[in-house]
Amino acid sequence: MQKQKSNSENSREMSIAVVLISGGLDSCVTAAIADQTNDLAFLHVRYSQRTEKREQQSFRDICRFYKPKHRLEIQMKYFSNIGGSALTDKSIEVPEKIQGKTPQTYVPFRNGNILSAAASWAETIGAEKIYIGAVEEDSSGYPDCTEEFLRKFETAVNAGTKPETKIKIVAPLLHYNKGEIVKKGIALGAPLHLTWSCYQNERIACGKCDSCRLRLKGFDLATERDTISYA
Amino acid sequence: MQKQKSNSENSREMSIAVVLISGGLDSCVTAAIADQTNDLAFLHVRYSQRTEKREQQSFRDICRFYKPKHRLEIQMKYFSNIGGSALTDKSIEVPEKIQGKTPQTYVPFRNGNILSAAASWAETIGAEKIYIGAVEEDSSGYPDCTEEFLRKFETAVNAGTKPETKIKIVAPLLHYNKGEIVKKGIALGAPLHLTWSCYQNERIACGKCDSCRLRLKGFDLATERDTISYA
Repeated sequence: MQKQKSNSENSREMSIAVVLISGGLDSCVTAAIADQTNDLAFLHVRYSQRTEKREQQSFRDICRFYKPKHRLEIQMKYFSNIGGSALTDKSIEVPEKIQGKTPQTYVPFRNGNILSAAASWAETIGAEKIYIGAVEEDSSGYPDCTEEFLRKFETAVNAGTKPETKIKIVAPLLHYNKGEIVKKGIALGAPLHLTWSCYQNERIACGKCDSCRLRLKGFDLATERDTISYA
Repeated sequence: MQKQKSNSENSREMSIAVVLISGGLDSCVTAAIADQTNDLAFLHVRYSQRTEKREQQSFRDICRFYKPKHRLEIQMKYFSNIGGSALTDKSIEVPEKIQGKTPQTYVPFRNGNILSAAASWAETIGAEKIYIGAVEEDSSGYPDCTEEFLRKFETAVNAGTKPETKIKIVAPLLHYNKGEIVKKGIALGAPLHLTWSCYQNERIACGKCDSCRLRLKGFDLATERDTISYA
């Protein structure tokens, strides 16, 4: 099953959009939205997270589906040196329930780092937009997934790049709940079966971590079936 | 020759400051300023620039001098994939004179990437400040070295980190000219002889690239002698 290329996608007048593809559900639906009106440039960042390899596989599978015009995989190994998160420091357990205001799976300012790399690439290839699948409403409560952060970061990007560079940060799912995200993805034919959400495992999703629970809740709310396997 | 530790530096009440140490003149003088009132955390970023190894050597030499409480060396190899700059793409020549509004040695949004990593580290180790040796007045004209960018980036960092995280970006040299920077460094006993500025060479500074010219101008204006070797 592969996306059918429409005529408009081959038009030279479409602007390029960098789309951050983690390999998860939200970024895949974001790609489906970006694909409607842009030439795609898919960026995947490995940051020494527990399920790095599995997410990379999903990224590659999603690339095979969407066939983006540009693609780039990069590594930010330094997150394992910095630590401070259950995702990048194996001595901190992945919790099954969110505790406290900021969960232990928050990776310190991760999206600032990823968006900065995206801005560098966008400026170089002439992309005018960066799409990110950040979700504020129905999410884990990460501070770097909020509208306030993204708006301020966009302002900083435009101040810190060439005068002629204009970059817009687009987060189409910011105010969606998980059910709406699943519905939107299915409506747009996004390959949700290729995505990976589990924070803990790389073969069979645990079904218990915060990310699995949010994903399952999304399919539940949308009354759709999640076709990946759970433990 | 090594810095003498004063009693106040051993006080537990000093706050931690992350200092970005490229290995160049400006970051070394910035370290000397930060050292007066903070516990030091030195961060060095290799980004596949031409003189990566030489700058790393300078970083290590400067660490031996200041003996920071924390230190971290990280790599952002992806700048070589992104390219778009004479410093990270060897097919683009390092110019001897600045041409155009933004020089070819500008690395797209480099400081956004470096400051993001610094913010991640600062949040993890509990640092309240990030010192950067950015110079706006008497500089190469990089958009990511301006007061406007740094102010906006600071706002974004504080929006995108935990509610209890408060990080200040400090750029003490922002409005100094190069002569004042050299004078300040010498007044504070900064080890300027350990620093490296040349964009082009790793053994003997070319004396011709934009960075060498700015450095030489600084020593000239300060009527001081630069003790490193030039071709």
